Amino acid sequence: MAQTATVHSGGNSPFADLPPIYAKLAEAKARKGLTYDQLAKAIGKDEVWVASAFYGQAKFNLEQIEALAKVLDIPASNLHNEVGEHWWPNRGLGTTPPTDPVLYRLYEGVLVYGTPIKAIIHEKFGDGIMSMIDCKVTVDKKPDPKGDRVVLTFDGKFLPYATW
Amino acid sequence: MAQTATVHSGGNSPFADLPPIYAKLAEAKARKGLTYDQLAKAIGKDEVWVASAFYGQAKFNLEQIEALAKVLDIPASNLHNEVGEHWWPNRGLGTTPPTDPVLYRLYEGVLVYGTPIKAIIHEKFGDGIMSMIDCKVTVDKKPDPKGDRVVLTFDGKFLPYATW
Amino acid sequence: MAQTATVHSGGNSPFADLPPIYAKLAEAKARKGLTYDQLAKAIGKDEVWVASAFYGQAKFNLEQIEALAKVLDIPASNLHNEVGEHWWPNRGLGTTPPTDPVLYRLYEGVLVYGTPIKAIIHEKFGDGIMSMIDCKVTVDKKPDPKGDRVVLTFDGKFLPYATW
Amino acid sequence: MAQTATVHSGGNSPFADLPPIYAKLAEAKARKGLTYDQLAKAIGKDEVWVASAFYGQAKFNLEQIEALAKVLDIPASNLHNEVGEHWWPNRGLGTTPPTDPVLYRLYEGVLVYGTPIKAIIHEKFGDGIMSMIDCKVTVDKKPDPKGDRVVLTFDGKFLPYATW
Amino acid sequence: MAQTATVHSGGNSPFADLPPIYAKLAEAKARKGLTYDQLAKAIGKDEVWVASAFYGQAKFNLEQIEALAKVLDIPASNLHNEVGEHWWPNRGLGTTPPTDPVLYRLYEGVLVYGTPIKAIIHEKFGDGIMSMIDCKVTVDKKPDPKGDRVVLTFDGKFLPYATW
Amino acid sequence: MAQTATVHSGGNSPFADLPPIYAKLAEAKARKGLTYDQLAKAIGKDEVWVASAFYGQAKFNLEQIEALAKVLDIPASNLHNEVGEHWWPNRGLGTTPPTDPVLYRLYEGVLVYGTPIKAIIHEKFGDGIMSMIDCKVTVDKKPDPKGDRVVLTFDGKFLPYATW
Amino acid sequence: MAQTATVHSGGNSPFADLPPIYAKLAEAKARKGLTYDQLAKAIGKDEVWVASAFYGQAKFNLEQIEALAKVLDIPASNLHNEVGEHWWPNRGLGTTPPTDPVLYRLYEGVLVYGTPIKAIIHEKFGDGIMSMIDCKVTVDKKPDPKGDRVVLTFDGKFLPYATW
Amino acid sequence: MAQTATVHSGGNSPFADLPPIYAKLAEAKARKGLTYDQLAKAIGKDEVWVASAFYGQAKFNLEQIEALAKVLDIPASNLHNEVGEHWWPNRGLGTTPPTDPVLYRLYEGVLVYGTPIKAIIHEKFGDGIMSMIDCKVTVDKKPDPKGDRVVLTFDGKFLPYATW
Amino acid sequence: MAQTATVHSGGNSPFADLPPIYAKLAEAKARKGLTYDQLAKAIGKDEVWVASAFYGQAKFNLEQIEALAKVLDIPASNLHNEVGEHWWPNRGLGTTPPTDPVLYRLYEGVLVYGTPIKAIIHEKFGDGIMSMIDCKVTVDKKPDPKGDRVVLTFDGKFLPYATW
Amino acid sequence: MAQTATVHSGGNSPFADLPPIYAKLAEAKARKGLTYDQLAKAIGKDEVWVASAFYGQAKFNLEQIEALAKVLDIPASNLHNEVGEHWWPNRGLGTTPPTDPVLYRLYEGVLVYGTPIKAIIHEKFGDGIMSMIDCKVTVDKKPDPKGDRVVLTFDGKFLPYATW
Repeated sequence: MAQTATVHSGGNSPFADLPPIYAKLAEAKARKGLTYDQLAKAIGKDEVWVASAFYGQAKFNLEQIEALAKVLDIPASNLHNEVGEHWWPNRGLGTTPPTDPVLYRLYEGVLVYGTPIKAIIHEKFGDGIMSMIDCKVTVDKKPDPKGDRVVLTFDGKFLPYATW
Repeated sequence: MAQTATVHSGGNSPFADLPPIYAKLAEAKARKGLTYDQLAKAIGKDEVWVASAFYGQAKFNLEQIEALAKVLDIPASNLHNEVGEHWWPNRGLGTTPPTDPVLYRLYEGVLVYGTPIKAIIHEKFGDGIMSMIDCKVTVDKKPDPKGDRVVLTFDGKFLPYATW
Repeated sequence: MAQTATVHSGGNSPFADLPPIYAKLAEAKARKGLTYDQLAKAIGKDEVWVASAFYGQAKFNLEQIEALAKVLDIPASNLHNEVGEHWWPNRGLGTTPPTDPVLYRLYEGVLVYGTPIKAIIHEKFGDGIMSMIDCKVTVDKKPDPKGDRVVLTFDGKFLPYATW
Repeated sequence: MAQTATVHSGGNSPFADLPPIYAKLAEAKARKGLTYDQLAKAIGKDEVWVASAFYGQAKFNLEQIEALAKVLDIPASNLHNEVGEHWWPNRGLGTTPPTDPVLYRLYEGVLVYGTPIKAIIHEKFGDGIMSMIDCKVTVDKKPDPKGDRVVLTFDGKFLPYATW
Repeated sequence: MAQTATVHSGGNSPFADLPPIYAKLAEAKARKGLTYDQLAKAIGKDEVWVASAFYGQAKFNLEQIEALAKVLDIPASNLHNEVGEHWWPNRGLGTTPPTDPVLYRLYEGVLVYGTPIKAIIHEKFGDGIMSMIDCKVTVDKKPDPKGDRVVLTFDGKFLPYATW
Repeated sequence: MAQTATVHSGGNSPFADLPPIYAKLAEAKARKGLTYDQLAKAIGKDEVWVASAFYGQAKFNLEQIEALAKVLDIPASNLHNEVGEHWWPNRGLGTTPPTDPVLYRLYEGVLVYGTPIKAIIHEKFGDGIMSMIDCKVTVDKKPDPKGDRVVLTFDGKFLPYATW
Repeated sequence: MAQTATVHSGGNSPFADLPPIYAKLAEAKARKGLTYDQLAKAIGKDEVWVASAFYGQAKFNLEQIEALAKVLDIPASNLHNEVGEHWWPNRGLGTTPPTDPVLYRLYEGVLVYGTPIKAIIHEKFGDGIMSMIDCKVTVDKKPDPKGDRVVLTFDGKFLPYATW
Repeated sequence: MAQTATVHSGGNSPFADLPPIYAKLAEAKARKGLTYDQLAKAIGKDEVWVASAFYGQAKFNLEQIEALAKVLDIPASNLHNEVGEHWWPNRGLGTTPPTDPVLYRLYEGVLVYGTPIKAIIHEKFGDGIMSMIDCKVTVDKKPDPKGDRVVLTFDGKFLPYATW
Repeated sequence: MAQTATVHSGGNSPFADLPPIYAKLAEAKARKGLTYDQLAKAIGKDEVWVASAFYGQAKFNLEQIEALAKVLDIPASNLHNEVGEHWWPNRGLGTTPPTDPVLYRLYEGVLVYGTPIKAIIHEKFGDGIMSMIDCKVTVDKKPDPKGDRVVLTFDGKFLPYATW
Repeated sequence: MAQTATVHSGGNSPFADLPPIYAKLAEAKARKGLTYDQLAKAIGKDEVWVASAFYGQAKFNLEQIEALAKVLDIPASNLHNEVGEHWWPNRGLGTTPPTDPVLYRLYEGVLVYGTPIKAIIHEKFGDGIMSMIDCKVTVDKKPDPKGDRVVLTFDGKFLPYATW
């Protein structure tokens, strides 16, 4: 747990594009020394969803704001004021292509495996897409003697293309 | 099984960027009416890897070429001649951002969930990346009464950042 | 109705590109708990037009400024001062392609259905365009047991191409 | 009905990016002097969907191929061979931003009215999107003494954002 | 009048993006040694409109095709076949920004004088645009002892912005 | 005449790229309720040139600064201080392609009519360009019962290409 | 003098964008073993101008075509046919920024010294530009014991900005 | 000599990208009414180099800082503090392509004459480049009755390509 | 050793994209007159790694923060507060392509020698990549009578491509 | 040694941008089963230089052409004809940013370590650059029990910036 923690919200920081409350949330999380998983348990959601909400990519509902304010010791009114009922996410963060190697590898996954994945989806499901709206994302750590592995999963509804 | 099948390799087809043998492979696959999974079993690999190799995103070894030629009834020498030992993949297919909705949704996954995924990887693993080189990709169909779901998984080794 | 509501006008917020009064209008709307439709009725226009004017994509006339100031309890002089007679909209908001999924889907509509729509317009009307200047836009909610539907309509004058 | 009609499939023609059968279909349509609406009736679909399929933005099923071959007097086998069961659309046509004024006006609609439309969708439906996959597009001609009007409608399912 | 004239339709030639008949028209024009003005008189239009139609930026009607075929000694059927009733212009030529100095100077006119022109249009006409659809373009030569001058005029209808 | 008028000089306002005195000039113009034409008469120039100078696209000379200060009731020293003898215009305003429909239509004029205009200039003048430096721009209102028309004229010196 | 010489006119060769006669001219020049300077003397021009004309960036007049055909032993009619009176240069070659180091260094000259050069031009000449149309370019070799030097000169007319 | 002079260092001013001392230097130069040539004499360098250093494209050494401080009446310590020994130029100014016509003409020189210049350099010097690092740039005024001319010279060392 | 040194963290400075502490670190380094090599010795790392950490491209651990604070005489708490345990690098600095000639030459190395290096890597190692994560970078000075040389080395682990 | 080997020179192959002889050279190399190192020994150069020459990024001299023709059993005249004395490399291959992971990692090296490398070069050498013209590149394999390593070295002359 850090005594103090300042989260940079200028330059190319992802917080530079978000309402100021998000940098405050990140500072409170650092100060409390809580993980996304611990926060997730406090509000009854998964850690990746919570992380996406902490970067303004999802919308907290009223109960989540209350629970979050309590666990992070910040006034709920600050959250209501900036990202309450009147606010809607403007999704999509960062430049394209990303320069950060962690992000770039995900992007490279689309460049290299995107077309093969499309081919398999069509072969298994027909003409349509994997929804990125009705989609759940998880990140797991799989221990491995040759080096631990990151297991990243997108679980999205198949949507068949309409014809009319 | 189609009597004949011509695979377009001009315009914005992914085959337009690849050695001509790849369109021939796709035509043979269509003519034989085989799925990637059936081909994968024939050469002892996973279907997504086979699909990536069918789009020139991976390199068949000599045994795989022989097995493939047999199951698809095409001369192995054609494969050796074009994508044999002297050939190496030039990976990455298609324009960015992709216009096809199936590909775009994957790309949108990076835009919307990329930064949260990075945050979770750092929290769980420290400073480093999920390798897209030592990475296995799978696409599964999960039946669901509200509509079947696509489960897309990246299982990549965590690589800690070197310091020196 | 929110006690207070702060509308972020920095970063990638659409308000970042607009005169500051627009964020104030949005805050007043949130504070009053009014919908675009309720505001539209107050000034005698349609809700989509009002929303476009609230994002600086249309110009309020003097009567609309007076009516709006009254219903939102803000001084009309503030509106006159910033977006009064001397001000003209500089239309067009956001980056292209948009990263937000709601906006991207509209953009995808142009990518996928734009050329077919052009073909139908020529077949039905001849050589010319659908005006986006003399055009009315509406957004309706159509209840549906399989999931409510958004009905988005552009009603634009056909303009035949001049020859001379 | 034209005696002969050649459809340009090079340069910046949309057919330059599509399998060659699409230019052949367009030529047959011109030769027969049929409208998209007449073709649509022949295969039991709407004219905009048929136009989108004629530009490779949708996939004909086997029955549609048979019906189309009959009404256009072309061998069904040609269609099966190029865009039969083994083929899947690679959607998205043309450069962005479009230079053609008909297409540009649609694109301008996204630039100018996209953010207001998003605001209305959120206000009426909550956090989510209008699907462009489960979406029906129509183009109608509305007579008007001051100049006929194009009525373009997108009727798309609302998809609420998943939380998990 | 040239005995023969070949018009390059590859590389960065504007004809590279157009149906092949346009290069043939340009070759016939060169062979006959006719100016756009002479051609314009032959079909009863202005020279700039004819030049725009010779670059595929406008559509000849049936009478114009017949008149043109006669004055250029080419079969009208060739024109009907390629750019007859079934063909519609896909307007917009060349890369942006243009590299050719003649084109660039026009583009520079938009960069330097575009915003002042917008300000004057709003001051004189109110909220709206100068139509580029209902617009006539002329290019005149004005003799001047200090060097002849090009007088380029756009005469376009003012379209007031719809409100609804 | 407005009591007060604030000109936004942030976001995507053209004033955001200019020395702050230009927003002050625009505010003074609004406060005085003067048109560009009235200002032009006060300093002995044309209205379009004055508008271009009010957007930093031309340079006021010392006499013009004095005259302008007088008619707008602002200290001449402020103008001398910011855009006096030591200052030179950095011409070119706004993003490309422009998103504002008024500006875009001018840009579309280059896309659609640029190549035809180039062809006519070469035919009438030979190898060279229309100068955009020795060029006068005017915007006139032409009354028309079917809708008033904007007449935009570029009157530029023809410059023959040097050979050496 | 080469027995034979083939000039590549595909891929990223500058000849790929030019009428085919230009590659033929370059091949004839190589076969004859002539320098641009020798060709320049044969037609009475400077070598840099001749090189620019050999890359389609200037227009040969009729006498130059005759002289060139003689010195290169190629039929003048071929030149007249492709780049004769009916042809006009479409100037500007290559991608931007250039990847070739020779070209890039020139481009870097604009990036690094462009703004200082502009400042000096304004200080010495006032408000205006150095013409790139009425401009002569020379490339000289200056022997130097520490390594020979390239002396590249642009000698262009100063054009004062019009005011009106 | 101006009593006061403020140099804009926001928006698209080149000073917006530089340490604040550079705007201060430009203001002092304006206040003193000195030309780059007069400043150059004061520190023993050429005027173009001095102009490049005034735009942060070169590095003043300690003696130059002292001399400059004296002639401009500003504290040398301010210069040492911001652009002293610890500072290195980050060269390259402005957007590409440039919108300002003075800068654009230089850029057009690369587009139009770059490839011919490359051809002449290779013909006269062999495989290598003109250095833009060991390069001296001068701008001279050449009086001419038909209009004064700008003579811009790049005098750069030829660097042969290494082979190894 | 400078008495004072201000490091510009606005405009196009690399520090503009980083948490403010990095400009403070650079100022302390300048004030102390220490080289990266001296700092590297103080914290037990190589100079290039330290330089990369000083530009926010690597993460200091807790001991390094303590050692650095001591040698630079700044409070360790400032470092912990801004770039402590809760902070992770967002790697990648500057625009692409870079305009600064030092950076551009590295980039040109990729343009010119990238494909040959890829060919050699495949020939020597097979299908895979040189890791830029498990990679050590060094910069050495090699004295040479014809001019000292920079020896830049990337020592990265070969990662074979996974197949599955 | 392959009996036959066809090198794809279309699509996104690097050979698509080069004179056709380069694909022939690559095919001959594959047929002979020779490495770049073996070829390098045959013509007395380093393997990376030879690889760069095999991709058209360097120029073979007459002796190298003769030696190469002999070792590869191809007619020297073919090489003289296409890339002989009259030909000069047009350097720079592939799109930017590269999509191939091997190339991208080099590019990422510039993004992540470029600014730190620049800082070290200035600290050790002063104001100037590492030449990419007088630069030798090597790629070595360093065995390592934890996985072999690629050692990539750029050995380039330091060029101090001219002042004048």
